[in-house]
Amino acid sequence: MSKRIPVGVSNRHIHLSVQHLIALFGEGFQLTQLKPLSQPGQFAANETVTIKGPKSEICNIRILGPVRGNTQVEISKTDTYVLGVHAPVRMSGDIVGTPGLTIIGPKGEIMIDQGVIIAKRHVHFSPEEALEYGVVDKQKVKIKSLGERSLIFDEVIARVHPTYALDCHIDTDEANAAGITSGDQVELIAD
Amino acid sequence: MSKRIPVGVSNRHIHLSVQHLIALFGEGFQLTQLKPLSQPGQFAANETVTIKGPKSEICNIRILGPVRGNTQVEISKTDTYVLGVHAPVRMSGDIVGTPGLTIIGPKGEIMIDQGVIIAKRHVHFSPEEALEYGVVDKQKVKIKSLGERSLIFDEVIARVHPTYALDCHIDTDEANAAGITSGDQVELIAD
Repeated sequence: MSKRIPVGVSNRHIHLSVQHLIALFGEGFQLTQLKPLSQPGQFAANETVTIKGPKSEICNIRILGPVRGNTQVEISKTDTYVLGVHAPVRMSGDIVGTPGLTIIGPKGEIMIDQGVIIAKRHVHFSPEEALEYGVVDKQKVKIKSLGERSLIFDEVIARVHPTYALDCHIDTDEANAAGITSGDQVELIAD
Repeated sequence: MSKRIPVGVSNRHIHLSVQHLIALFGEGFQLTQLKPLSQPGQFAANETVTIKGPKSEICNIRILGPVRGNTQVEISKTDTYVLGVHAPVRMSGDIVGTPGLTIIGPKGEIMIDQGVIIAKRHVHFSPEEALEYGVVDKQKVKIKSLGERSLIFDEVIARVHPTYALDCHIDTDEANAAGITSGDQVELIAD
């Protein structure tokens, strides 16, 4: 039986801590929702910032809400060359030893000393979906995209949690290499 | 037995016809060699041009020599969004029905009405190498990259010709998605 999963392509974005949100947007500022994301409770905010590395800067970096414990910047490998920041491939939250950069908002500018990552490809599952697809949390799985740039993604991490909904998250480099876009379907393949 | 193949990552580049070379650089102009490429007789030139689409332009597009029968621009999917040019995935030379764009050189500017492609991933083999690796010209093969962004590239075209040398050509999106770079090795895998 084919095990299909919808794709969500993550463009470069940022998660902010409440302290950093205040430093960039001012005391008492609240993010406002542009649109909900596939994961329940998560949203793309109307607000954006500029990020600046040793080589150049990139504007209009979308903030994803709500605020988090730690600020985290997720960029593509292509972006790392533009910025001059050598970010490693990491799972979200695993930021120890990663590089920092400068973040510029309308009310202030901060320098973070860590938190810049290339997100490791992963699939979100609710516990019920994990059961149906036969995977457990943190399991490495393979997914396959179809078409003229068909790819089999190895080293995809299954993430299982009651707050998750079925979605395969890859970044823009991965989506472009596979010739797929948000809303396309990929297939979970057994080893 | 493992069948390893070196990787050559193709950054955006352009091949020019002699007429277009003259239009951009002036009568009697000859390309000068910056460095040889993996394929015998092919070279990266010192000369570059700017390419311009409806949305924006990209400077410093490397010219690859020698001149060819038809001008061809090879860009990544990422570049297509920057330029606003909807290039299809094609094998080199297969440019009928592809979009054009504006090319700007030091002595002139031209508009081509076709020739912009995203290069389809392929592997060059000499006839001896094809025999050793068990492939024939135009065969679809799979190649696998290793590491934390391991990918299996499906839909890879084998190209066999006496003027070719063993090299797997992918573009920057594909290299970034796989976390590999020129000179890394990939593996040919049997179906």
